[in-house]
Amino acid sequence: MSHLINNLPLVIQDAAAVESLAGAIKDDMGMLWMLLSGILVFFMQAGFTLVESGMTRSKNAVNIAMKNLLDIAVGSLTYWFVGYSLMYGDTSNGWFFWSGIMQGEGADLFFQTMFAATAATIVSGAIAGRTKYSTYVIFSIVMTAIIYPIAGGWQWQGSGWLTELGFIDFAGSSIVHAVGGFAALVAAYLVGPRIGKFVDGKVMPIPGHNQILATLGVFILWLGWFGFNGGSQLAWGGDDAVAASTVVLITNLAAAAGALGALITTWIWYGKPHLAQSLNGALAGLVSITAGCGNMTAGGAVLAGLIGGVIVVFSIEFIEKKLKIDDAIGAASVHGIVGFWGTIVIGLWGVDGDTKIGLFNGGVTDQLIAQLTGGLAYAVWAVVLSFIVFGILKKTVGLRVTEEEEVAGLDISEHGSIAYPGKRERGQD
Amino acid sequence: MSHLINNLPLVIQDAAAVESLAGAIKDDMGMLWMLLSGILVFFMQAGFTLVESGMTRSKNAVNIAMKNLLDIAVGSLTYWFVGYSLMYGDTSNGWFFWSGIMQGEGADLFFQTMFAATAATIVSGAIAGRTKYSTYVIFSIVMTAIIYPIAGGWQWQGSGWLTELGFIDFAGSSIVHAVGGFAALVAAYLVGPRIGKFVDGKVMPIPGHNQILATLGVFILWLGWFGFNGGSQLAWGGDDAVAASTVVLITNLAAAAGALGALITTWIWYGKPHLAQSLNGALAGLVSITAGCGNMTAGGAVLAGLIGGVIVVFSIEFIEKKLKIDDAIGAASVHGIVGFWGTIVIGLWGVDGDTKIGLFNGGVTDQLIAQLTGGLAYAVWAVVLSFIVFGILKKTVGLRVTEEEEVAGLDISEHGSIAYPGKRERGQD
Amino acid sequence: MSHLINNLPLVIQDAAAVESLAGAIKDDMGMLWMLLSGILVFFMQAGFTLVESGMTRSKNAVNIAMKNLLDIAVGSLTYWFVGYSLMYGDTSNGWFFWSGIMQGEGADLFFQTMFAATAATIVSGAIAGRTKYSTYVIFSIVMTAIIYPIAGGWQWQGSGWLTELGFIDFAGSSIVHAVGGFAALVAAYLVGPRIGKFVDGKVMPIPGHNQILATLGVFILWLGWFGFNGGSQLAWGGDDAVAASTVVLITNLAAAAGALGALITTWIWYGKPHLAQSLNGALAGLVSITAGCGNMTAGGAVLAGLIGGVIVVFSIEFIEKKLKIDDAIGAASVHGIVGFWGTIVIGLWGVDGDTKIGLFNGGVTDQLIAQLTGGLAYAVWAVVLSFIVFGILKKTVGLRVTEEEEVAGLDISEHGSIAYPGKRERGQD
Repeated sequence: MSHLINNLPLVIQDAAAVESLAGAIKDDMGMLWMLLSGILVFFMQAGFTLVESGMTRSKNAVNIAMKNLLDIAVGSLTYWFVGYSLMYGDTSNGWFFWSGIMQGEGADLFFQTMFAATAATIVSGAIAGRTKYSTYVIFSIVMTAIIYPIAGGWQWQGSGWLTELGFIDFAGSSIVHAVGGFAALVAAYLVGPRIGKFVDGKVMPIPGHNQILATLGVFILWLGWFGFNGGSQLAWGGDDAVAASTVVLITNLAAAAGALGALITTWIWYGKPHLAQSLNGALAGLVSITAGCGNMTAGGAVLAGLIGGVIVVFSIEFIEKKLKIDDAIGAASVHGIVGFWGTIVIGLWGVDGDTKIGLFNGGVTDQLIAQLTGGLAYAVWAVVLSFIVFGILKKTVGLRVTEEEEVAGLDISEHGSIAYPGKRERGQD
Repeated sequence: MSHLINNLPLVIQDAAAVESLAGAIKDDMGMLWMLLSGILVFFMQAGFTLVESGMTRSKNAVNIAMKNLLDIAVGSLTYWFVGYSLMYGDTSNGWFFWSGIMQGEGADLFFQTMFAATAATIVSGAIAGRTKYSTYVIFSIVMTAIIYPIAGGWQWQGSGWLTELGFIDFAGSSIVHAVGGFAALVAAYLVGPRIGKFVDGKVMPIPGHNQILATLGVFILWLGWFGFNGGSQLAWGGDDAVAASTVVLITNLAAAAGALGALITTWIWYGKPHLAQSLNGALAGLVSITAGCGNMTAGGAVLAGLIGGVIVVFSIEFIEKKLKIDDAIGAASVHGIVGFWGTIVIGLWGVDGDTKIGLFNGGVTDQLIAQLTGGLAYAVWAVVLSFIVFGILKKTVGLRVTEEEEVAGLDISEHGSIAYPGKRERGQD
Repeated sequence: MSHLINNLPLVIQDAAAVESLAGAIKDDMGMLWMLLSGILVFFMQAGFTLVESGMTRSKNAVNIAMKNLLDIAVGSLTYWFVGYSLMYGDTSNGWFFWSGIMQGEGADLFFQTMFAATAATIVSGAIAGRTKYSTYVIFSIVMTAIIYPIAGGWQWQGSGWLTELGFIDFAGSSIVHAVGGFAALVAAYLVGPRIGKFVDGKVMPIPGHNQILATLGVFILWLGWFGFNGGSQLAWGGDDAVAASTVVLITNLAAAAGALGALITTWIWYGKPHLAQSLNGALAGLVSITAGCGNMTAGGAVLAGLIGGVIVVFSIEFIEKKLKIDDAIGAASVHGIVGFWGTIVIGLWGVDGDTKIGLFNGGVTDQLIAQLTGGLAYAVWAVVLSFIVFGILKKTVGLRVTEEEEVAGLDISEHGSIAYPGKRERGQD
């Protein structure tokens, strides 16, 4: 600001100085909003850790924590070093971005880094309980440095092929969640099910060990999502302030509707309202509105979230019982399948300001076609690249720990400590 | 901002353009502060979940989580659909508000929604461990759609009868906390005590299962309260920025004093400084300053919080031992009794800018009478409405689970899963 | 803002009105950023509670929670009452500050209060499991009222002797963390090791009881640190917005590098990547960049954090195995030793805008000498004052509980309740 003041003309002769001040302040406020949003998105890593560890067994909880810690650590470095440049094509600094960050792009790079780390961490839950840590390290690097940035650039770079196509994905139902979710599906398929998950063709439940931590994790994710979606406005002030506020409001409405959608579905389907599925429903509501949070009425957001909450319950059952894929926490359903739903719903009842752009509210199909194209492109990209990366890893370093190590728990075998050392281990109190 | 810039006169002939810019920026900053405050208040739902589940038994923890998840989900939808309109009387959109939210009120609606959800969730802890989930669903809807919005409108609508009376309740010691707390008291009375709480006229302790989660919950509530109180300034910039900062500062001082008040009281009374009561003391300090955080010196806030922390210890004992009402976590004391204290303390040593408005610092009684009137009105409203709603529910769907279900735990009987599935349940590790 | 508008000249004759508006808005935004940062730093108290309790035994978890609750409660009151005035020398209000806070300094006092509470709470983890609560109460008061404020004034008051010397400590690697960390070292030495820690000259592991809570705690600390470092810019807008954003960005990079530094070190050294040490590594990365977050390139921050993550692993081993001091959670290493590292690294490869001020990047030694002087001054101050305070306490009220009380656990002996009341204790479910 001081440089601004110093550079002001001493006499105002027209509106230029006021306009210039207005623009500078808008930039300042936008930077503040993005930085705070990035901080909220960072906290989602804690949410993922709690959801994933709470919904799986205690003997693998340290491993979950180590994977999530790795995702933010590796993701922060790789995305800074190469991913951001690759995604946003700031090639003036060469392919590596690190030389350019002191030039005022700190808030944006910080915000975008958290998205990359999120895309990676979605995968960690699906393959919990049997995957080698060293293998996961390599995948996490490739995901944050290459797979996610290239895919993200198609749309968010500003002149990518999906942008040209009119595709809308405001905060990443496809770009972040479906890419992460479909990678999780492929990973879970290639790694194979946990021992004891499918016995004589029967699906066995392997309940998580701490549903309160899982609940806390979902609240933290819900909280962080306000930054994830709201910060994607990338600006604050005037119309942008109104728009970002509306984004946060309808994000909350969709999450609420998603939780209720799953809660009611399980109440009818199972006879009792079910916590873990209702939590997944809240997350599904959030994923359902992530693409369309800038292109949806409040009523449309509620409907999108509600349906997302219903979808996730059946999707989890389908992947487990029909596809026989062991996705330990339902990540492929929450982020992948529902991410696709959140992408195409814009083509069904989305709006663009006052213009109705959906099949059901405007009777037009252009947007729906664009959404289907983009949604499929991201799904295919994630599936193909994950097949390649995990396929190579399977043939080389291997994907799974030994059967003995799996039974003992990854905490002991991969990290040499347990999550909850108790009396027996301590022998002292 | 851009619309502002575009609409600027090309030549500034007077201060109007600068004034207009200043006003627009103040609006932008106010919207940012309210949105961020709303996000902080949202997080309080996680705090309530942890406090309530940590302070009760593990066999009912899933049920606690399901009730808190329900409150935010139901509250978000009902308050958007009808509560906000009912409370703030924006009847231009008809009774239902949903048609109006795209007009720039997103941040305000979001912020106010979180207050409604808070009022509901206060009740859930008091009646933990024996209440039917279906009954609670109905109460939660009625609370967020009708009971809280009507009561809130008396004061916050701007021209309600309590506003006319000169009543002060800046952030809701009465409007949110006492309404929730007295509803909790009535609910706990009508539902009846948990099995084993009162045996042969003797009060039996039923300790919570996880004091660390309860501690984390209190820290999260304390954190969220900065948004709860600070955001109630409803603006940012100039005097409002100074005022909101002072609100946050004295909110923290009152919380600190409340924690110490209870800590010292238990140290003297029980012989040892007691964690659960000190945590309640911190919450009591926060409730004590919620009404007066805009009308109190820092010293006055410390004193209000300190006394609130002492009150809560004795109030919990009184309700349990004398009234024989089983309030499982002391919610009626923390939010109800102390909410009343926080309301009337403004009439004792409150200030209005530089004017002293209290009995003890200014020697005037007008404010105290207004505070007593408003405080009693909210207590009576909450008690009467809760008697009606829970009374009807008792005669129809019923309030309690069966004795067998209660002994087994609500997690199993109401939700079909347990919070901490261990080795025995899994049979696998 | 409204007072500003009202005071505007009706006709703008020069740029003064625009400049005045720009300045007022910058103040407003700075106040918002500091308040939000202070709120984030407040949350670090929850992080410390979880890290300290998670990394120690369950029989002392209530005691940990009580100490952390005390630190924020006592720290808020003492720092408001005397510490802030002592540190920043606002002697116009007399020695006690309480009369002056309604004059617009709320955001700053709130922000600085949280730093004082942090300095105190660092000590609580090191001496876990055997220290008398009453003794800790006295130390906490002295720390937040006297030890920290005097030391802080040397640099942050603006004209202290270290400021004059050219010493740089942007957010407190030395002023907060090393002061807390070296006090922790002295305290752990004087209190003596826990029973069973050193048996026949052999170091026995006493593992924590909940590594997932510890992980959550580290994520919360990492989150809060964005406010700790970023808020230390003390302003927002123009160059300050860019600077604060960069501070947050490189704080994250250093934390990421620190986590990886420790993770890789343990993978090589122990054969397996170790969670507790990796968590300490993340904290070490954060401490490493706390002094230099305004004077470091992104690459320099990564290197500083990486080395900090390596240092902390060996420092913990050294203090435990060579010095035979029982620092229960490694606080002296994380905050003390690494705090010193974070202070001197500015003299090795720090920058000041475009100027290189380090031995290795600029070939100059002036800054390094200033950093060594300041770093040593804070270490010596903390060691000497802690020796005096804990020495007096040892001779008077005593430092340790009895052997019997220690074996039973401090939760029972000092607070009369346990963290996780289970079936046996309840006898009811």
